[in-house]
Amino acid sequence: MDATVGSLGEEALVARIVRGTGAMPRGVVLGPGDDAAVVACPDGRVVLTTDLLVEGRHFRRDWSGAGDIGHRSVAESLADVAAMGARPTSVVMGLGVPGDVEVAWVDEFLVAAVAECARGKAALVGGDVVASDQVIVCVTATGDLEGRAPVTRAGARVGDVVAVCGRLGWAAAGLAVLSRGFRSPRALVDAHRRPEPPYDAGVRAAKAGATALMDVSDGLLLDSGRMAAASGVTLALESSRLEIGEPVATAAAAYHVDPLVWVLGGGDDHALLATFPADVRLPKGFSSIGAVVAADGDPVVLVDGRVPEVESGYRHFS
Amino acid sequence: MDATVGSLGEEALVARIVRGTGAMPRGVVLGPGDDAAVVACPDGRVVLTTDLLVEGRHFRRDWSGAGDIGHRSVAESLADVAAMGARPTSVVMGLGVPGDVEVAWVDEFLVAAVAECARGKAALVGGDVVASDQVIVCVTATGDLEGRAPVTRAGARVGDVVAVCGRLGWAAAGLAVLSRGFRSPRALVDAHRRPEPPYDAGVRAAKAGATALMDVSDGLLLDSGRMAAASGVTLALESSRLEIGEPVATAAAAYHVDPLVWVLGGGDDHALLATFPADVRLPKGFSSIGAVVAADGDPVVLVDGRVPEVESGYRHFS
Repeated sequence: MDATVGSLGEEALVARIVRGTGAMPRGVVLGPGDDAAVVACPDGRVVLTTDLLVEGRHFRRDWSGAGDIGHRSVAESLADVAAMGARPTSVVMGLGVPGDVEVAWVDEFLVAAVAECARGKAALVGGDVVASDQVIVCVTATGDLEGRAPVTRAGARVGDVVAVCGRLGWAAAGLAVLSRGFRSPRALVDAHRRPEPPYDAGVRAAKAGATALMDVSDGLLLDSGRMAAASGVTLALESSRLEIGEPVATAAAAYHVDPLVWVLGGGDDHALLATFPADVRLPKGFSSIGAVVAADGDPVVLVDGRVPEVESGYRHFS
Repeated sequence: MDATVGSLGEEALVARIVRGTGAMPRGVVLGPGDDAAVVACPDGRVVLTTDLLVEGRHFRRDWSGAGDIGHRSVAESLADVAAMGARPTSVVMGLGVPGDVEVAWVDEFLVAAVAECARGKAALVGGDVVASDQVIVCVTATGDLEGRAPVTRAGARVGDVVAVCGRLGWAAAGLAVLSRGFRSPRALVDAHRRPEPPYDAGVRAAKAGATALMDVSDGLLLDSGRMAAASGVTLALESSRLEIGEPVATAAAAYHVDPLVWVLGGGDDHALLATFPADVRLPKGFSSIGAVVAADGDPVVLVDGRVPEVESGYRHFS
């Protein structure tokens, strides 16, 4: 029988995880193993965000492997750092696992989490491991603004271009595939399991002069609605400008679903949504999907001039 | 019927929590409500620590109220910041609650969490709220070293004085009281429910020249064993120097328990354990409990010259 985390015990498991985090890059003053880590903040300010993922709600262990969950939980928080126009620097992680989970599961989780941290150029500098009924992952990420102002979701101005960088609808299509009992198309399933947010695009957007920036985690409609509300403007999107990925279109046709349901309503791809002054040349990876217009009454999101009927993104507690 | 978080929904709950965090102090560049917060790090480095607390493992909702859980989860992380010799600056929090939990529970949790942040002079700057089967709290805290080196657990040197600041055994005695079905003595039950780590003592220890510093969260024996191992020394404690609080002594007598079982083995009071050069005048609140001696073989903790038989602190997964 394979060893479980229960049989290994906390002390040995923590030691194993600390070994698995590997060598610390420059910028980490003190890595894992003490009461707290110490990370350099050359800018004099630190960007700080936390995300809590819970089994059965954000992922299922029969649909996502340990590596998928490790990857995805890190990706969500690093995307939030990028969404401020900052560069990710470090990650600390709270991990809850049932005692009967195999040590190999934790190993696979950790390898993928560390790899995704590395893709974001952030170091995993600390954490906490506890026993729990469900698998729980809480990832807190830090970032560095490199002297720039943070780009909030509240800065969109009338006349700006609305642009997006990254995939829309792929993760939702992948979840729909899994929900129907299938494991392919693989590209969609992988998009759900291992989203790859365009971390560098956050810094590019900030440098290009983005007026507002945010991470699309709950669906384009819901999140652009949040940007509209925070900025006090209306975002007028054009559906013809929304890229519908080829596998998304194929799956939608097979399931007799309007692909826009996934593209507008689906979350978890962690594309970046931004607004730029109209005279700015959009940075690499961004494409225009609409314009910022004055709110006529409450700030809303329009698609092709109308308030869309598509069911919008994921909501908890519902 | 009172409103539940399920009936309120995520968006309204988050808005309610953001309102509840109140005005942000100076040092917070950007508070709750965006993809991430931004906090000043005047020192150019940030101290970072995370703690995950899970219902049924770290607390029981029938033994601890919402306010107790909010207070305690913040206290654990701020104590870790203090244990580096740093001043707490900010907190972000992941909160998982079952949908049938009342909104009033979350309100009470938040008020106490914000109050304990304020006691530590830290601001609650962000978080994430999700639905979960168990109540889950993951608190990440940041701190500022004010130009000092972090004080790790690895710096204890032969000849140093071992000292402690804060209570030992109170929370364990309180847990024993609750386990036996009682709700008093109130001082002990409160010590379990709402530990009050001496945050300022961490900075005082660092300024006084502490060579090693750590938070006693899993019991004096277990944690001083970790300091001994990290420093490659043996810690020789004297039981006669360990303060046994009056209610701890009374409860021990009533339950026919050796109070040292709680004082040496009990965690969760979050006292600070430190070592200082012998010629240092101990800072306010610290009292000597022993000396650092050369390790004769593996580094260990001795009590009155012997390896103690007392069962040592709490371990997860066991």
